[in-house]
Amino acid sequence: MSRNRRPGPSQRVRVREHRTGQVPLDREDRLVTEEPLEVRCAWPGAPPRRVGVTMRTPGHDFELAVGFLLAEGVLAGADDLDTVAYCTDRTLPADQEFNVVTVTLARPPRRLPGTRYDGVAAATSACGVCGAQSIDDVLGLQHVASAHHWEDLRVAPDVVRALPSRLRESQALFEATGGLHAAGLFDVEGALLVAREDVGRHNAVDKVVGARVLAGRSPATPLLAVSGRVGFEVVQKAAAAGVAVVVAVGAPSSLAVELAGSAGVCTVGFTSAERFVTYSVPDRVGV
Amino acid sequence: MSRNRRPGPSQRVRVREHRTGQVPLDREDRLVTEEPLEVRCAWPGAPPRRVGVTMRTPGHDFELAVGFLLAEGVLAGADDLDTVAYCTDRTLPADQEFNVVTVTLARPPRRLPGTRYDGVAAATSACGVCGAQSIDDVLGLQHVASAHHWEDLRVAPDVVRALPSRLRESQALFEATGGLHAAGLFDVEGALLVAREDVGRHNAVDKVVGARVLAGRSPATPLLAVSGRVGFEVVQKAAAAGVAVVVAVGAPSSLAVELAGSAGVCTVGFTSAERFVTYSVPDRVGV
Repeated sequence: MSRNRRPGPSQRVRVREHRTGQVPLDREDRLVTEEPLEVRCAWPGAPPRRVGVTMRTPGHDFELAVGFLLAEGVLAGADDLDTVAYCTDRTLPADQEFNVVTVTLARPPRRLPGTRYDGVAAATSACGVCGAQSIDDVLGLQHVASAHHWEDLRVAPDVVRALPSRLRESQALFEATGGLHAAGLFDVEGALLVAREDVGRHNAVDKVVGARVLAGRSPATPLLAVSGRVGFEVVQKAAAAGVAVVVAVGAPSSLAVELAGSAGVCTVGFTSAERFVTYSVPDRVGV
Repeated sequence: MSRNRRPGPSQRVRVREHRTGQVPLDREDRLVTEEPLEVRCAWPGAPPRRVGVTMRTPGHDFELAVGFLLAEGVLAGADDLDTVAYCTDRTLPADQEFNVVTVTLARPPRRLPGTRYDGVAAATSACGVCGAQSIDDVLGLQHVASAHHWEDLRVAPDVVRALPSRLRESQALFEATGGLHAAGLFDVEGALLVAREDVGRHNAVDKVVGARVLAGRSPATPLLAVSGRVGFEVVQKAAAAGVAVVVAVGAPSSLAVELAGSAGVCTVGFTSAERFVTYSVPDRVGV
């Protein structure tokens, strides 16, 4: 399997399938593509600097970069953006050319970007100055917006129950590869606004948020649905985007619920057509 | 939900369960605990420095730290270790006291640790010096051991098929919370050597590798089984540990298969009692 210059979201490979009682069969299959994306950020008077690297599925890379920077508190909306482009750094080899995106801001950042990797902040200092402050940095909680402006929002249980199947219907790649997470933003009636897939759960969330921003719309929507589980990082991104309710097919973690509670985000887990469970801010779901 | 000084692997919370056609029910539930773990590393003449932060499920933290450093190429086995301890940094607040582990090496590291976060290397430099070299750094491929010494190993298909259920039997926490990944090392006959659970897939792998090292045994075992999918990072850790075959319940990614192929690691996906699919090094599985 050789890398091409612009990798697609999935790749053909030769595999061998073993079934009980049958002769192994060599055939072709599709794998979800995983490649690193380096996000660089520049603004007037400041040359591009690396602010994050994530292992992602290629496609919607500009959305991913913009959503990532919104979650980091670097930008708040389309007004803060000048350009988004693949890096033209001539030192890059051809096979990495589409793995570096530079976001140029129209003005200095709202919050100076640190370097973060898959959602965790990087410290440039050696230890000794670590401790509480550094762990707070790592958690990236300083700039998490509050979802308390959704105080009057009430989402019908039937809308919540319908989200997993609506999200799944939007998952074209999963059907082909079985290897992807999905995230979708929905309005209060459960109508899909935008959905994206990625090998990384948090990337899929960054992509839907970034898609809204690049379309000139607010990412502060009523409902974010995610396949699988909800950890701290997805809630942090949802809270930064101003989302009211995070609906997951799987289980939430303790820190996800704790953060959601303090940010005023409702968390819902184990969601299916028959049932779901609310954790933080439970009164936001009801008739 | 308030944090205690030494968080357990799961936590009790109050939840509200909605079932179609029924009145919502308030009850107690258990969530998997997610907390940051900061890994620090020291050696003779060098004070502790932060080398990684990961969001993990508390428990087996020393194993996690040691496995992480082995994957990073910092240490190769128990002989390289002096002590492993929770940090006694007095600047840490009480609720983070058990979220910092310091590994003290008996000798200077085999490879100088960079700062990595959830498996992705952190660069301390601003951009401009980025490019190919930095992406290779991020991928952390420089020190990945080869599994080619397993050339004569042949694993029976029946052994492969049995691994997911054996791994699942070892998962105590998953039953309680539904929110955990598992990893297990097995011998060539499919006997379980060690299994661990974590909210992060890569942490579960670090824990089983670290458990072997702390027990004075080699982590270079025939079989690593993981719940869920296999991304680049799990294969990188398996290759660094010298594992011969990675068996996943879910799908592998393109980069996972690519790296496994170049490191001589056999990858198996979609594994169940009825079938499985081999990707890289397929001849390592057969009768």
